[in-house]
Amino acid sequence: MAIGRETVENLIKISKPKWRTSISQVAPNRITTRGYPQEDLIENISFAEMVYLLLKGEIPSKSQSKMLQSVLVSFCDHGVTPPSTQMARIMASTGSSMNSCVAGGLLSFGKHHAGALELSMKVLQDALKHVEIERIDSESVDLVQTAAQMVVDRYRSKGEKIPGFGHRFHQEDPRPPKLIDMAIKYDCFGIHTELALNIQEILFKTKGVRMNIDGANAGILSDLGFEWELGTGIFMIGRLPALVAHVNEEKVRETPFRKLFEIEEIYYDGPDIKKLDEFFNID
Amino acid sequence: MAIGRETVENLIKISKPKWRTSISQVAPNRITTRGYPQEDLIENISFAEMVYLLLKGEIPSKSQSKMLQSVLVSFCDHGVTPPSTQMARIMASTGSSMNSCVAGGLLSFGKHHAGALELSMKVLQDALKHVEIERIDSESVDLVQTAAQMVVDRYRSKGEKIPGFGHRFHQEDPRPPKLIDMAIKYDCFGIHTELALNIQEILFKTKGVRMNIDGANAGILSDLGFEWELGTGIFMIGRLPALVAHVNEEKVRETPFRKLFEIEEIYYDGPDIKKLDEFFNID
Amino acid sequence: MAIGRETVENLIKISKPKWRTSISQVAPNRITTRGYPQEDLIENISFAEMVYLLLKGEIPSKSQSKMLQSVLVSFCDHGVTPPSTQMARIMASTGSSMNSCVAGGLLSFGKHHAGALELSMKVLQDALKHVEIERIDSESVDLVQTAAQMVVDRYRSKGEKIPGFGHRFHQEDPRPPKLIDMAIKYDCFGIHTELALNIQEILFKTKGVRMNIDGANAGILSDLGFEWELGTGIFMIGRLPALVAHVNEEKVRETPFRKLFEIEEIYYDGPDIKKLDEFFNID
Amino acid sequence: MAIGRETVENLIKISKPKWRTSISQVAPNRITTRGYPQEDLIENISFAEMVYLLLKGEIPSKSQSKMLQSVLVSFCDHGVTPPSTQMARIMASTGSSMNSCVAGGLLSFGKHHAGALELSMKVLQDALKHVEIERIDSESVDLVQTAAQMVVDRYRSKGEKIPGFGHRFHQEDPRPPKLIDMAIKYDCFGIHTELALNIQEILFKTKGVRMNIDGANAGILSDLGFEWELGTGIFMIGRLPALVAHVNEEKVRETPFRKLFEIEEIYYDGPDIKKLDEFFNID
Repeated sequence: MAIGRETVENLIKISKPKWRTSISQVAPNRITTRGYPQEDLIENISFAEMVYLLLKGEIPSKSQSKMLQSVLVSFCDHGVTPPSTQMARIMASTGSSMNSCVAGGLLSFGKHHAGALELSMKVLQDALKHVEIERIDSESVDLVQTAAQMVVDRYRSKGEKIPGFGHRFHQEDPRPPKLIDMAIKYDCFGIHTELALNIQEILFKTKGVRMNIDGANAGILSDLGFEWELGTGIFMIGRLPALVAHVNEEKVRETPFRKLFEIEEIYYDGPDIKKLDEFFNID
Repeated sequence: MAIGRETVENLIKISKPKWRTSISQVAPNRITTRGYPQEDLIENISFAEMVYLLLKGEIPSKSQSKMLQSVLVSFCDHGVTPPSTQMARIMASTGSSMNSCVAGGLLSFGKHHAGALELSMKVLQDALKHVEIERIDSESVDLVQTAAQMVVDRYRSKGEKIPGFGHRFHQEDPRPPKLIDMAIKYDCFGIHTELALNIQEILFKTKGVRMNIDGANAGILSDLGFEWELGTGIFMIGRLPALVAHVNEEKVRETPFRKLFEIEEIYYDGPDIKKLDEFFNID
Repeated sequence: MAIGRETVENLIKISKPKWRTSISQVAPNRITTRGYPQEDLIENISFAEMVYLLLKGEIPSKSQSKMLQSVLVSFCDHGVTPPSTQMARIMASTGSSMNSCVAGGLLSFGKHHAGALELSMKVLQDALKHVEIERIDSESVDLVQTAAQMVVDRYRSKGEKIPGFGHRFHQEDPRPPKLIDMAIKYDCFGIHTELALNIQEILFKTKGVRMNIDGANAGILSDLGFEWELGTGIFMIGRLPALVAHVNEEKVRETPFRKLFEIEEIYYDGPDIKKLDEFFNID
Repeated sequence: MAIGRETVENLIKISKPKWRTSISQVAPNRITTRGYPQEDLIENISFAEMVYLLLKGEIPSKSQSKMLQSVLVSFCDHGVTPPSTQMARIMASTGSSMNSCVAGGLLSFGKHHAGALELSMKVLQDALKHVEIERIDSESVDLVQTAAQMVVDRYRSKGEKIPGFGHRFHQEDPRPPKLIDMAIKYDCFGIHTELALNIQEILFKTKGVRMNIDGANAGILSDLGFEWELGTGIFMIGRLPALVAHVNEEKVRETPFRKLFEIEEIYYDGPDIKKLDEFFNID
């Protein structure tokens, strides 16, 4: 019996898949995500639950979903002060498309901007990596205090700031305490947040420095079970709506080609005018 | 009385602001978005409500917020089939950072991919721009039917497909009818969605073509009062969590430097090997 | 005779190639570009000749190569005044990597910035599309004058500026006349440049407006046979070295997190502080 | 005497510049780069000389310029095999603009792709940092041999490959030896290239591994005095023309929405279909 070419091709395709994924399955007229038909998800889950389902593979409890929601809302916007927002608006001002402007904003999340959440998660998770604590009790409190002191000492000896603590602008940011309240309310307060609070206690006594929004969210997201490698990803999810809003505001309300400064505000400190003749004979 | 330099500088700064925004106000220890203190938003609103507040400047009603939530969830993921997801994963495979990979994914939203929502919103909004309809009644139904026929005729005469209708993969996508159900349930069904359904009716009779997910969401978002220029922005907000999940899956589960094809799968049809001697004498 | 699976797979791969290209052929230990072994190119051609070979598929004459070289050099840098350069430097300031910063810079080439070369090429090429002129003589000069007047009239009636003419900063830019000189010197002066000069003559008489660098290069590149669709691509090739230099200067000489403005320079004109209570009962 | 507001503003601008640069100076009708009027540069220098001038601040000697030219040409293209080229073409296929496609390509230069040049430059420069060698003579040859052995031993003990040596595809790449020849011809052969050759000698004897194009260029660029931090920047300058050519080829010759694989080539290994009912009661 002859086997058709189509058959052979299909056999090969199936036996040697190009792409492997466990996130969504797409078949004609059926799309499931993490196993759930998308039409069921559309009807029943919140956007924050969808974020949790995509990133962790399961549907969160109601309180976990409320907690993640507060975290995502807390990242929403910081006006035009962050470089990423300025980038997105400057690009909008040159006439770039919405998706390019937003992508440009995301690209400016470098190590000096927006990286603090991820770094702070790493600090907290590394410090408790080998500590086996299931519940917060008197014994675990001691362990966490010791860990906090070790983190502070390590950064002090390096002469560096601990990511997640201190803010260039806010002395007493109202967001971190509210997030901690929410963690308690939704029963999501765990040892990573406890550690962050312990670090704050030491830093506040010695330097008057408080936890910032990244520190609070680093604790909470770690307690929710997110690996630190997802930190910047979660921050981007929370911040994207504002980038879209800013790009739109720039396009709708401002004139193109935003002028960031006057030409007199540039200071040139290169060489004075030189002649090329000494190097070249015009050929 | 002499005026200090600092004073003069500050007067100038205040009287000639560099940036203007109505989205968020940032002052030491106080951050408000659209007028609401962020700590109140963190405690009380959902992520979908935050999206609405940022984009439209006001807090939605509960049913509007549920509706937008369904829309955002519906954009969540389409497995590894879209070019944007493939791009993000290929970049992850080369070792790029999370934010670069996601930005790369967003950049591939060109006119042939992910642009359909915005185009579909524009079609629906343009068709009803000069139609004054407040409620859907027997009179308005006639007007919408006429508008639907005009849209179909215009695209037919151009020989082009109407954005938001037909799918390269799904004949009977379960998502659009579910979204329409939600619009009815949340009392968000308006004339733009009615128009989309009317267009579908004509196309289905003549060609067996159904509304796709972009068409359904185009109607709903237009009825929610979103300008078509925000279409791609809203799609990106809904799709971003999946891009983060795919980049993470690639980094965690796959080996670096993904091989998309074998070298034998490249077909070179340029010139055969040439010698340079005919052009140059080595100098 | 049984045929092995490997053989079948390879047959299929060869008969259904995934990718088709005429630019380079890669085989083990042999890489040719447009047919030329790369080791020959490395030894014998200039970088400008490589650009020409890649974009047009053939090696330019010596005078064409000198001409393209002048064009590429002319795009080199405009200090920190263009948005793209500011973007690349702001990103460098946030700690992003070299390739992300440069990509961010390229992304800001929107229709209001860096798009003028391409638009100007399109204007010149469209205006002469149906004109059959081989050499510039007394007859063709008349045709070109007519075309110039038509372009000016068309833009005047639209109330728009012609891309490639006028500059927000330079009244008498020294670069365009030098480029025209080079075009004459290298025998690359053709009807598109002639058309650009004719447009300038009309605009200068009526409005004192001169050709800018994009207008001059649009004429020359069109005369060299480049399609207008390649305009932004060629500009990017010429400008990239400066973006790299600026990113490096920012990283080496400036402190991170560049402050573009003081917080007092932001003007917030959104709503005053609102309370959420009216909308929500804390649940 | 009253001082006008304009005067005060200008004084402040000049005394507190927002931006500082030594690359180009822009004044009305006069643009200088590294001190040279751009109209002189347009007339007299090659594109490779412009690259050198921008990056190093001075005009190279004729032989240095020829050397850099060979290096830039050598980066030109590797067909559709690199991820960056595939990315740029896939984006072109979705209808993205030229600058977005090229930016997308550059973004995929992650640590597993295109980073080898920079890493290889770092290896060579670090190994010779504390070695004071002015000329290559019998004494310095010994020092370089020792350094080579140290590099090999260090990587061997880590079980890692030395960046710049070995190629996944070419066993005997014709480009590196040609580049070494050029370095000798143009009198640009120095201790870094000598070190790279010494490392190759050891690796070839023990493992049959040769220097690749990154290793050869790492030696040459280091001998030309380029800091390793500029490696990826220089590679991008050399590769950009090919990215433009590939994007253009995709747009001109291929149909939109390139299909990278069949749906059957996706292997889904997530959970089977689940019902949501267990979690939610539709509210």
